[in-house]
Amino acid sequence: MSYTYKYPRPALTVDCVVFGIDGEELKVLLIQRALEPYEGCWALPGGFVQMDESLPEAARRELVEETGLDRVFLEQLFTYGDVERDPRGRVVTVAYYALVRMSDHKVGAATDARDASWFPVWDTPSLAFDHESILQAALKRLKGKVRYQPIGFELLPKKFTLSQLQHLYSTILERDLDRRNFRKKILSMDILDELDEVEKDVAHRAARLYRFNERKYKKLVKAGFDFQI
Amino acid sequence: MSYTYKYPRPALTVDCVVFGIDGEELKVLLIQRALEPYEGCWALPGGFVQMDESLPEAARRELVEETGLDRVFLEQLFTYGDVERDPRGRVVTVAYYALVRMSDHKVGAATDARDASWFPVWDTPSLAFDHESILQAALKRLKGKVRYQPIGFELLPKKFTLSQLQHLYSTILERDLDRRNFRKKILSMDILDELDEVEKDVAHRAARLYRFNERKYKKLVKAGFDFQI
Repeated sequence: MSYTYKYPRPALTVDCVVFGIDGEELKVLLIQRALEPYEGCWALPGGFVQMDESLPEAARRELVEETGLDRVFLEQLFTYGDVERDPRGRVVTVAYYALVRMSDHKVGAATDARDASWFPVWDTPSLAFDHESILQAALKRLKGKVRYQPIGFELLPKKFTLSQLQHLYSTILERDLDRRNFRKKILSMDILDELDEVEKDVAHRAARLYRFNERKYKKLVKAGFDFQI
Repeated sequence: MSYTYKYPRPALTVDCVVFGIDGEELKVLLIQRALEPYEGCWALPGGFVQMDESLPEAARRELVEETGLDRVFLEQLFTYGDVERDPRGRVVTVAYYALVRMSDHKVGAATDARDASWFPVWDTPSLAFDHESILQAALKRLKGKVRYQPIGFELLPKKFTLSQLQHLYSTILERDLDRRNFRKKILSMDILDELDEVEKDVAHRAARLYRFNERKYKKLVKAGFDFQI
């Protein structure tokens, strides 16, 4: 089979930057490429867009095929189209990013990749194509968004302690946050439910668990509330 | 000439949402299509990406060709790839948006469009393809950005009165702003230079002119300052 057009067309791919939090570290999901170019090299999961699927459908399909990751909320990040970004010729890629609760998902290479694994975002192997700059753009977007939208909760277990939440923000924003100010700020927003439960199986004194109340948050936003950390 | 590929490829286009302020109104630059599909219909300026140009280069070229608008700062908005968005077949488009000082630019249809003209954003003719939803997305982005980044100044004359600035924000945000609070807020940021000049040729009492001081703003941002209206 072959396909003929009157004018030349770039090839179109999607790539996914998937972030997760593992205890103390912000991680990104990478695959080891099974094919040339960059065979054996680590890369963002992704691949060619098929004619009968939308762009987010292509991204979701590639994530499943290459990493086993399913039912992930993807958001479009940016489209990369530099003329020289792919040795195979002109390839334009639409990048997506996602935040996942690592505990909810098992990853492993499926059909199209040699391996799939989580890496600390500040300590990844050298990446194929321009994937390093896509990763950096996704990190920048995450840093920006996490301050103005309550997306950080998507990375934490559904029930979390205020220390875990503070740690998440410190990790993403790459700076220390004052414990007392952070607690005051987040509790004053009134978007967390304090649960009648405490942490289990911890060496230190078990801390209170909280849960993000999305319904309350949406109500506040309608009333003009601005989330800001 | 024709071009043959092993797998089918979507066609790739760029489209531009260019905003300007004309006195009281927020406007968008549209072109009247000279060719099918949607011949004679109004649309966002745009067209096919060539193999030897980057995506922003394609957007800039199309703007010049279709509207005469040159030297515009374009920012990527979103990529639209719904399977059915173009009657010609699968066409994926990378949308850009730009803010221009209307007084600095003259527009007029160049080679590829029948006409080019500014329309009030809340009163456009019916648009080709999915361009209405691209325009709405650009408006949403503009509304969001204008509150957190000093981009509004790009729409105003270099020297402006505080009333003009307030009016700009009211127009984009679609709500009234309290005159006294607005002035207090914007002046307290210390990013405007008060000039030794007043408005000319006005019927009312001539108001003081101001200029955005980008150098000062960048210095403040480095020190942790957050612009917010």
